[in-house]
Amino acid sequence: MTAPTDRLAALRAELSRRSLDGFVVPLTDEHMSEYVGAYAQRLAWLTGFEGSAGTAAVLADAAAIFVDGRYTLQVRAQVSADDWSYQSVPQTNVASWLAEHVGDGARIGYDPWLHTKTWVETAARRLAERGVTLVAVATNPVDAVWADRPQPSAAVLEVQPDDLAGRNSAEKRQAIADWLAERKADAAVLSALDSIAWTFNVRGTDVARTPVALGFAVANADGTADLFVAPEKITDAVRQHLGNAVRVQPYAAFAGHLATLAGKRVVADPERAVAAIFGALEEAGATVLALRDPTVLPRAIKNAAELAGHRAAQARDGAAIARFLHWLSVEAPKGGVDELIAQDRLRAFRAEGGLLRDLSFDTISGAGPNGAIVHYRASAETNRPLEQDSLYLVDSGGQYRDGTTDITRTVAIGTPSAEMRDRFTRVLKGHIALARAVFPEGTRGTQLDTLARQHLWAAGVDYAHGTGHGVGSYLSVHEGPQRISPAGSAQSGGDEPLRAGMILSNEPGYYKTGAYGIRIENLVLVEERRIEGAEKACLGFETLTFAPIDRALIEPALLSREERDWLDAYHAAVRATIAPQLDGAVAEWLDVATAPL
Amino acid sequence: MTAPTDRLAALRAELSRRSLDGFVVPLTDEHMSEYVGAYAQRLAWLTGFEGSAGTAAVLADAAAIFVDGRYTLQVRAQVSADDWSYQSVPQTNVASWLAEHVGDGARIGYDPWLHTKTWVETAARRLAERGVTLVAVATNPVDAVWADRPQPSAAVLEVQPDDLAGRNSAEKRQAIADWLAERKADAAVLSALDSIAWTFNVRGTDVARTPVALGFAVANADGTADLFVAPEKITDAVRQHLGNAVRVQPYAAFAGHLATLAGKRVVADPERAVAAIFGALEEAGATVLALRDPTVLPRAIKNAAELAGHRAAQARDGAAIARFLHWLSVEAPKGGVDELIAQDRLRAFRAEGGLLRDLSFDTISGAGPNGAIVHYRASAETNRPLEQDSLYLVDSGGQYRDGTTDITRTVAIGTPSAEMRDRFTRVLKGHIALARAVFPEGTRGTQLDTLARQHLWAAGVDYAHGTGHGVGSYLSVHEGPQRISPAGSAQSGGDEPLRAGMILSNEPGYYKTGAYGIRIENLVLVEERRIEGAEKACLGFETLTFAPIDRALIEPALLSREERDWLDAYHAAVRATIAPQLDGAVAEWLDVATAPL
Repeated sequence: MTAPTDRLAALRAELSRRSLDGFVVPLTDEHMSEYVGAYAQRLAWLTGFEGSAGTAAVLADAAAIFVDGRYTLQVRAQVSADDWSYQSVPQTNVASWLAEHVGDGARIGYDPWLHTKTWVETAARRLAERGVTLVAVATNPVDAVWADRPQPSAAVLEVQPDDLAGRNSAEKRQAIADWLAERKADAAVLSALDSIAWTFNVRGTDVARTPVALGFAVANADGTADLFVAPEKITDAVRQHLGNAVRVQPYAAFAGHLATLAGKRVVADPERAVAAIFGALEEAGATVLALRDPTVLPRAIKNAAELAGHRAAQARDGAAIARFLHWLSVEAPKGGVDELIAQDRLRAFRAEGGLLRDLSFDTISGAGPNGAIVHYRASAETNRPLEQDSLYLVDSGGQYRDGTTDITRTVAIGTPSAEMRDRFTRVLKGHIALARAVFPEGTRGTQLDTLARQHLWAAGVDYAHGTGHGVGSYLSVHEGPQRISPAGSAQSGGDEPLRAGMILSNEPGYYKTGAYGIRIENLVLVEERRIEGAEKACLGFETLTFAPIDRALIEPALLSREERDWLDAYHAAVRATIAPQLDGAVAEWLDVATAPL
Repeated sequence: MTAPTDRLAALRAELSRRSLDGFVVPLTDEHMSEYVGAYAQRLAWLTGFEGSAGTAAVLADAAAIFVDGRYTLQVRAQVSADDWSYQSVPQTNVASWLAEHVGDGARIGYDPWLHTKTWVETAARRLAERGVTLVAVATNPVDAVWADRPQPSAAVLEVQPDDLAGRNSAEKRQAIADWLAERKADAAVLSALDSIAWTFNVRGTDVARTPVALGFAVANADGTADLFVAPEKITDAVRQHLGNAVRVQPYAAFAGHLATLAGKRVVADPERAVAAIFGALEEAGATVLALRDPTVLPRAIKNAAELAGHRAAQARDGAAIARFLHWLSVEAPKGGVDELIAQDRLRAFRAEGGLLRDLSFDTISGAGPNGAIVHYRASAETNRPLEQDSLYLVDSGGQYRDGTTDITRTVAIGTPSAEMRDRFTRVLKGHIALARAVFPEGTRGTQLDTLARQHLWAAGVDYAHGTGHGVGSYLSVHEGPQRISPAGSAQSGGDEPLRAGMILSNEPGYYKTGAYGIRIENLVLVEERRIEGAEKACLGFETLTFAPIDRALIEPALLSREERDWLDAYHAAVRATIAPQLDGAVAEWLDVATAPL
């Protein structure tokens, strides 16, 4: 196995052979996925960086890796400062750095299957100011020097049954066809893996943490579709499930199919489809309609069957969390529990009963100061014991066939300090304010974000992340388009009006660097609210997650009567939902953990 | 005097003479002013519309008037449906309407001194799609047919003393020069009337409600300035005040001066400077830097002298409001008070003592259902008596030499209904939530807006206006750049970070069409907050307005302990601030009106 330094040298030699002065290496795949298969882990292979977001830029005499604030520490630990300079986004970005480091006439390569059209246009404009050209490569030069690059997963697809999906694929495709007809369009390109999984009611195991399969699709205005998936991944059962209106073609035939769409009006999503797709359509002579993928909104608005499945998954997940929290209450005081042991034990509790398909993301198991690292991932090097009089933060989720979960609990090990209780209670007050919010239809997530922060602000503190993200139905745990985030934040989605049926997380926090972290996260469902005398159609949240919130961390004097009532009612609902699955010592523990304050 | 129908015919004839197929008539002046002088009231002259915002578009065979939701009723009452079609913005806009009503090859005129560059570019693009050309006219065709058009005001300027302005004009000009130097710029065009008033510490009476004088200026990188004002407006005292570093030139010489800036780097504000200014600079061969007018932020951030003046003006204004509310409490139950009588009486109370220069805007004096019309202006036709068991809403403000005020109070005449008390208390809870908010530096107004709405939302109701606007120092009562408004609203300013020293209004409301209106408005000052244990520099609000809030409209059971405490503390501050100016029956009334709840 080559060392990163040798890999960088090999890439530079390859760039030189291709007469390129530089190359950009993002961390994504041809589907703009959040999690990518091993075959697409080019950034990790080249640099050693194992975080979930980042980009590298390589020049003949300089190389830089760009990460956001979550990975400032991790990038220094994993990536050699001899070879790479560390750059922080959004303070800088790849195009600006390149513009400063290359001169007139330079040619910088990029793989058009790994960037959005918007990125290409913006970067090209910035580089053009310096006389630099951005050049699309036909094949990725990293792949040319990555001798032992894994093949894409060949795992077979599985059918997501109609009774869990709530609508069959033909109905979904007809809805897309109706949407296309309204826009006088002939077809829509679906390139996001969860769009394909949702449209065809299939799932896969090609990517960690998200149950999707590698594929592209073109949904047509007549309700048929062309689905591009490696043939070995399609079993007879899947073939039969898809039916005759879905023409299955090899994954590699996708680009060629785009070339047949001359004269057609074709929808492609500028946020989700890569530049190569736009390029192929334009070259083919198709009229491209840059519109949002028509599956995004119907996927975000859960139907009754999806909600029923989600509730079942949550009840099961809540019981696993309760078993874990009980176990922690017994074992942690003895000593001997560390972050890795705890997260393994939590996974085991979730796996009991055999319904867990995967975790929905890498567990964040943070003891003491590690809890303050927002996207912490425990490793042998960082592993810490859960010590007396400290806090333990665990953010985790499960992929079940009937639903995707995501929950954070913060637990006092021993006796918490007054400051910890103050901060925890302020986070809880924000969580409750959001959970209890009622708002008119049309309200966007940005309009609710402050409700979750106000009590932290009153103490002069805050948290440096969004308050809520969308969640899929046995799909991505981070699903758009909706989001609850501060107005003006870089993350998109906060401007999406919330609609009944959307699921979001409600996860305010507080992080004291080097000391402890606090986060309280439940999932919530946007639901219609009937209010006596209302003049507007109103929405509110139903909390979907059921697990005790640590009463030892609450300072009751800081809670209003309404907040206390909310907490007691929540704990009563937790007991009612998960107690039937528990017995013995766990049930007794739950009674105490969910007693009124 | 001609009738509007004849005026429209005359304008059409003029357009035909000029080979124009249409013309756009906005309601503004060469300074993009909110209030304009009589000479610039082209929209009112042409259509009869007397609202404060609107635009007309005239074609040979069609004409439309565009107003926002505030003026839907008023436009129908004042503008003939025979001649004009009523259009609602932002649902439609002038360019879209024109694009639908004119054909290929048409030429639509606009006056480049009355539109921003952004408007011209956007409209031209939209019209170009239809083969229509937007043509800048050299002289306004409305003026050509408006025989008795008033001359611009010839009123003389007055000096705003340094002890009220807090900084002398030379210091302000030096600060602009430093700002220009940082940007390697030679000059900044100042075209907004309040920018000129602030920079030169002068005021005027050329425009109703805002104490500004018609002028343009160019501030230079050497600290000198060219000021373009009609010579008859400059007295010896003003001439002496301006000093030798300010070259005074005739108003009409401004365009010619721009032509001398060849080769210079000149700042012009795309939101505040009209298209003609950009055109003249570009034609002259200047390099135009499209940046915000450098006086906007320092003007918004009040200095100690401005704040001291503001506090004095507020104490005076609060005493006038108290006298008025006491008078109302005596007279209204007897019957015989109507909207016009009440607003005249309020003006008279403000004028006592001789310090009132003008109202800061047209008083909104709304009885019963008229209170539900957000921008209501009482007239002989609409005037209503203040009836028993109804609400009376009065939104008003004064221009004093030391400060500009703006306050709304809603008063129960007789016995309010339970619904009125519920709604009023929810408005009050929102007002208090905003008044008590603490937030980190960098927070924008959009992030605070929901605090003021949350308790109305909980009852399924809302208000269809922003929550707060900036306020000037003896300048415009609506002053940018900051604003508290919902994320995603059309009004600009909500994204401006709030800074210590800014003054804003805090004015949530509730309006039941055909029944009553409620609004509670105080001005607040953004101030630094020191918080024990804070990790961030924090800000909060100090309330600047002092007048009783009607206790008869409060439902105490809906208030939290903290809200009640806030109200009692506020009323104690009201008493402490204004009681020394009152005696006899008014002082006794104040004691009762400000007693703890």
